[in-house]
Amino acid sequence: MKVVVIGATGNIGRAIVNELGARHELIEVGKSRGQQQVDITQSDSVKALFQRLGRVDAIVSAAGGVHFGPLAEMTAELFSVGLHNKLLGQVNLALVGQHHLSDGGSITLTSGILGDEPVRQGSNATTVNAALEGFARAAAIELPRGQRINVVNPTVLTESMEAYQSFFRGFEPAPAARVALAYSRSVEGSQTGRVYRVW
Amino acid sequence: MKVVVIGATGNIGRAIVNELGARHELIEVGKSRGQQQVDITQSDSVKALFQRLGRVDAIVSAAGGVHFGPLAEMTAELFSVGLHNKLLGQVNLALVGQHHLSDGGSITLTSGILGDEPVRQGSNATTVNAALEGFARAAAIELPRGQRINVVNPTVLTESMEAYQSFFRGFEPAPAARVALAYSRSVEGSQTGRVYRVW
Repeated sequence: MKVVVIGATGNIGRAIVNELGARHELIEVGKSRGQQQVDITQSDSVKALFQRLGRVDAIVSAAGGVHFGPLAEMTAELFSVGLHNKLLGQVNLALVGQHHLSDGGSITLTSGILGDEPVRQGSNATTVNAALEGFARAAAIELPRGQRINVVNPTVLTESMEAYQSFFRGFEPAPAARVALAYSRSVEGSQTGRVYRVW
Repeated sequence: MKVVVIGATGNIGRAIVNELGARHELIEVGKSRGQQQVDITQSDSVKALFQRLGRVDAIVSAAGGVHFGPLAEMTAELFSVGLHNKLLGQVNLALVGQHHLSDGGSITLTSGILGDEPVRQGSNATTVNAALEGFARAAAIELPRGQRINVVNPTVLTESMEAYQSFFRGFEPAPAARVALAYSRSVEGSQTGRVYRVW
């Protein structure tokens, strides 16, 4: 399969590349590094990426940021960060990508444990992650010709735990290599509209 | 209690006014009608509303639109309609409103059955509704001094079924008066971080 991995240079992305690279032709896409670049918040950049790639069999996204901060200090502008980046950025990869996806091809997006298990300062993350799972649930019933869409919902990464531990007290981290298995299930399996939780 | 109802002139809003009006002091807010007006997509308009109102004991929102349309024709721009209107509009009512809410006061937002039960052309609605429930789940653990936040998730209204029936084949509608009871449970009860489904 020809698999495009957006966010390929991040912790999860590199593990996905390791997991899928042995069996598939990968295109590794980053924001500023990788074989190709894309800014997922810019529609023109997303369209240009898929025009360069041609037809693909799987679109995998492990990209997008959210705003962390106290609810008491949150504003619409700060809240928009996650809406435009991790949410609409990934949704737009699916919206544009569907037209470049082969019959039976798959789209796999990334949410996260905070969608279900909120923490202080995480209201933007919880909202965005829940939204992404909603999007996949709905898009799955409209995609034609056997095309599929799923979401991987990872816990905090072992590799990121040191940086984020103050947000994730008591959470059990998972190594990126274990999280990457869920992307393999989505890409190489047959399910659609699923959330693969790794926690 | 002093209760501000945003979206008070809609089908759900009017039923909320009927339900809560007998027991509480209501401020009925519409986009272009009602006792007060607000454009929930404009931060300045939301801030100005709450500055006019002063302290309130409950904020109830039954406001906000989404974009309906086929996934195959959806664009980031069309998808943004629901993100900025029903989602960020209601989130911003909570973000601004929290600073004008009395101790022990409540915020009640509105999602909808499509968050859980997708239909064709409804990907924007499913995403936005799921996001709103995520937001309430997260905000509930950060609100101070006994302040609460919940979401009411109604099925299609009996009053709207004729207009929307082509989207909702097989769905069992509920009268707005029955949906309004859930807002009463949120405002006059003691729970937080809850989704009240009316279906």
